[in-house]
Amino acid sequence: MRTEIITIGDEILIGQIADTNAAWMARELTQRGFEIAAITTVGDQSDEIIRALDHGFERADILLLTGGVGPTNDDITKDTLCHYFNMSLEFDKEMLLNIESIFLKRKVQLNQLTRNQAYVPVNARVIQNRAGTAPILWFVKEEKVLVSMPGVPYEMKTAMTDDIIPCLLEQFMMNEYLCRFYLVAGITESGLATLLAEYENQLPAGFSLAYLPSFGYIRLRLSVWGEENSEEMKLQSRKLKQMLGDHFVAKSEKAPEELLGEKLRKKKYTIATAESCTGGYIAHRITVVPGASDYFVGSIVSYDNRIKEELLEVNGKTIMTYGVVSSEVVRQMAVSIAGKMRTDCSIAVSGIMGPDGGTKDKPVGTVWISTFCKGELLTQRYQVGRSRAENIDRTANLATLQMLKMLLRE
Amino acid sequence: MRTEIITIGDEILIGQIADTNAAWMARELTQRGFEIAAITTVGDQSDEIIRALDHGFERADILLLTGGVGPTNDDITKDTLCHYFNMSLEFDKEMLLNIESIFLKRKVQLNQLTRNQAYVPVNARVIQNRAGTAPILWFVKEEKVLVSMPGVPYEMKTAMTDDIIPCLLEQFMMNEYLCRFYLVAGITESGLATLLAEYENQLPAGFSLAYLPSFGYIRLRLSVWGEENSEEMKLQSRKLKQMLGDHFVAKSEKAPEELLGEKLRKKKYTIATAESCTGGYIAHRITVVPGASDYFVGSIVSYDNRIKEELLEVNGKTIMTYGVVSSEVVRQMAVSIAGKMRTDCSIAVSGIMGPDGGTKDKPVGTVWISTFCKGELLTQRYQVGRSRAENIDRTANLATLQMLKMLLRE
Repeated sequence: MRTEIITIGDEILIGQIADTNAAWMARELTQRGFEIAAITTVGDQSDEIIRALDHGFERADILLLTGGVGPTNDDITKDTLCHYFNMSLEFDKEMLLNIESIFLKRKVQLNQLTRNQAYVPVNARVIQNRAGTAPILWFVKEEKVLVSMPGVPYEMKTAMTDDIIPCLLEQFMMNEYLCRFYLVAGITESGLATLLAEYENQLPAGFSLAYLPSFGYIRLRLSVWGEENSEEMKLQSRKLKQMLGDHFVAKSEKAPEELLGEKLRKKKYTIATAESCTGGYIAHRITVVPGASDYFVGSIVSYDNRIKEELLEVNGKTIMTYGVVSSEVVRQMAVSIAGKMRTDCSIAVSGIMGPDGGTKDKPVGTVWISTFCKGELLTQRYQVGRSRAENIDRTANLATLQMLKMLLRE
Repeated sequence: MRTEIITIGDEILIGQIADTNAAWMARELTQRGFEIAAITTVGDQSDEIIRALDHGFERADILLLTGGVGPTNDDITKDTLCHYFNMSLEFDKEMLLNIESIFLKRKVQLNQLTRNQAYVPVNARVIQNRAGTAPILWFVKEEKVLVSMPGVPYEMKTAMTDDIIPCLLEQFMMNEYLCRFYLVAGITESGLATLLAEYENQLPAGFSLAYLPSFGYIRLRLSVWGEENSEEMKLQSRKLKQMLGDHFVAKSEKAPEELLGEKLRKKKYTIATAESCTGGYIAHRITVVPGASDYFVGSIVSYDNRIKEELLEVNGKTIMTYGVVSSEVVRQMAVSIAGKMRTDCSIAVSGIMGPDGGTKDKPVGTVWISTFCKGELLTQRYQVGRSRAENIDRTANLATLQMLKMLLRE
């Protein structure tokens, strides 16, 4: 079923934030077989919202709106939708009770702006917001559906998971969507396309292979509609894995840090990180995964070289001789942190993230990564790009993947 | 000048990545006075791209397209644009030289897929890509402009900064856009709206005040078009600052970690972090700012309580008596890390990020933050939300703001 996500919010149009809501919704919906036709962001203006609705109904069967329902922007979305569907507002007592109970819990005084959220369009279906005060509204237009929900991520996610997706699935009775994901590393996108050219050509009608590059790895998605293709899917999946050879890391849509966490938990291993250029980002990525405390012990971020010597006990002579961005230094860091934190595994990185600090021998983007597991060390040099934030991201992924591969080979 | 950003890419429609390119472009353009009318994402399909172009030209004067020009998706955008503007492709020798030189530098063999990028539409203006192989194409339709560029962030940013924005500014000769940003903390969005209701009512015609909430703080943007309003802008800006009182943190559009970095550099202070629940994220945020090595020394992430005792020397009895999420523990962490890393300042946090680990007294979202500066400690309890990733983000901002406020008051 073709779906369009419409985000209403000036904060996205002026670039204050990226539209991570849309990304989350798109992922959840795609996994359940909805096809996202477009994602549109418009500002908090009635005429722009109406234009977006017209465009949306032109290309999609389901429109999902987020945002524009907060107390400060005068419920622009709600009023616009009333106008668009030619409905008036009525007071909903149940809504007010919900709002009052939330304010009571938060111990905050209820003001008039928030009280106004209890007015809802007279012919819309109202879904109680389980996580906030703005109502979730469900409109029907001929065979099509429009759902408006708040833009606060937690409220949006709760509403989508608990109410909206189940209702949509029921109403539109999706055809079975089969898809498999593959995490692939150590090859460029065009290299991979060349490697898989023949495989793609032989895919039966209806099957499609999508390339989804991330920093430091590529995800492949093999997909087809219809339960009747499940045998063929198995066959094609096996073939693909074979074609990928050493570049294949895992058959999964999970992030590298989630896969690493699963592997560590399964093996009952613990891990620590010693980070220089990534400044704690690898530890962050590992600990964003719920339950990471089962295996993650801690980290020392030795941004200043003094800390490498004082807390990680890297040999001062080694630093003098080879420089901080070197195989020798990251190896010492990896062994030292595992010892200090008494873990089975460790990751150590040192590199030059830019924009400054590059030399001819070690240009911006030079990274050394050492991973340690039960006495064994694997140390590799990588070359990442030229943009600081991306380099940090890419380095974290490369380090996580290097550790993961080491565990998979055990 | 009304601008629409059109992102072409299945990877965004299936939710693999958030559209951070669009966020970056929107921010850069807004600061220079362009008005972003909409941001649209469509897939790698010709008919969908054409529909998006039609919609775009309906509401905007400038269309900026990114993506869909990589070697693996068969230059779908280029072919579609040729069709849309009724142009044929021709071989561009200069383009090929650029591509060849890039491949030579990367020491990678040039393949046919990439060589095809040297074919460009015959009547389009071609801008040399300084950072990659895909061409940047500039089309004119009546008084309107369409620019197509690669979706690779580094290439897009280089093209926008060096070529596209300067050319657009020259061609459209913008009216002066005046805007000022204010970082506000310690108040809810609706609380702030109530506080500023009267102020907003008295704003002269043309002035607008936008609320841009982030995790843990709100940014206000006061803006107006036209150089002739600069005196009034100064007046209104002073008034606003006065209205904000203690909630005012800084007159800036910079992120808290950038402001903290500037303050530390100015005072020649150094800083370290001791992180429990944030797992290194505060250190990461501080070190994403270029040049952070001038003031950031390092961090100990004591995710496991054992590390709090062993490496941060938090008293075991204190942990037993008050629990790890307590004022007493974060105070010891803050003092200890500043001592160990010999820094002037430090930030220490401990909290419960969820989804598990909450108790009745300390529900999920309970956070203690202690900031240390030159012998002084400030320790506060906060209550953040219920979603793990957001809680980590919010806690990092609250910690950075608490440190920043301490330095501003010195």
